[in-house]
Amino acid sequence: MLTSISGNNLIPSVRLFADSFRCNERPMRRQDRCIKDKSVIKEFLDRAQYGVLALNDNGQPYAIPLHYGYEWDKELPVFYFHGFTQGRKIDILLKNDSACFTLVPSTSIINAKPNNPCSAGARFESVIVEGKASVVQEENEKIKGLERIMDHYEQPTGPFSKGNLNRTSVLKLMVEKLSAKKN
Amino acid sequence: MLTSISGNNLIPSVRLFADSFRCNERPMRRQDRCIKDKSVIKEFLDRAQYGVLALNDNGQPYAIPLHYGYEWDKELPVFYFHGFTQGRKIDILLKNDSACFTLVPSTSIINAKPNNPCSAGARFESVIVEGKASVVQEENEKIKGLERIMDHYEQPTGPFSKGNLNRTSVLKLMVEKLSAKKN
Repeated sequence: MLTSISGNNLIPSVRLFADSFRCNERPMRRQDRCIKDKSVIKEFLDRAQYGVLALNDNGQPYAIPLHYGYEWDKELPVFYFHGFTQGRKIDILLKNDSACFTLVPSTSIINAKPNNPCSAGARFESVIVEGKASVVQEENEKIKGLERIMDHYEQPTGPFSKGNLNRTSVLKLMVEKLSAKKN
Repeated sequence: MLTSISGNNLIPSVRLFADSFRCNERPMRRQDRCIKDKSVIKEFLDRAQYGVLALNDNGQPYAIPLHYGYEWDKELPVFYFHGFTQGRKIDILLKNDSACFTLVPSTSIINAKPNNPCSAGARFESVIVEGKASVVQEENEKIKGLERIMDHYEQPTGPFSKGNLNRTSVLKLMVEKLSAKKN
């Protein structure tokens, strides 16, 4: 389904990512765009190439692109990320575990037709999750997280040596809210 | 340039987005990956299809994918976004103007070679900016912001009627820090 600007009397381009991602937050303007089907959400999570993890650094938002893996825990996914054992995101997480992870499985621009700028628009798919992130301490869970990341990119997994595990941090995001949309 | 996992004794997959984006924050592990050439940064900003704007919602990070436009103001870019006149991001910005905008012009996974999981890796390009975001009030600046957005997507601009302008909010992000990387 294409999103057309011209159909709802908005100025050119305002249809791009505008009215989205409020499934869980407030009465939605367009309920038809909110995805609640777990199989569709899972397909989005499988297809997205990376996501952006946003953290709160003493009040300053800090958002980094990350590759990821995930698994389903009851009704919500759990995400895993990896990184080095030091760095700004680790420093932040030790003080503040609030996090948001945003994925865009696909987006594209619909070019305007000649002499009709209002025909410009966009397609997009998105998933936004909010929750608590932490540094995984337990070795078996670190390995599981790394395996989920490798699975997501269809890469062969391990084995992971003790030394390599010690040089790597694995982050885990427990999801509390999830909003998925498509138009 | 490809990033190889095998070359630096890291476990498979930890090379993906790991050690990046610290140009402005702390001594960089890999100075060779930090981009300071304005023409390269501009090319990244021109090429990225969308970005993720992270805000601070009473301590909870909230990050939304947005289409954007920009212009260069002296040494740093100014970004423009558009949206409806109501919504969570507007509510947040009226209370807290701290923002981070993260763009990934490109990323790709380098598949592992047969029987060599450590040969997996990734390419990526990224720009992370931190600064202050606000709702543009002045009509001429709203128009300029919308024009920059349309320019970015190579769409025809305006004219923008008073009515349409009133139904649209334009956000502006003044950048205070910028970090760009490629590997």
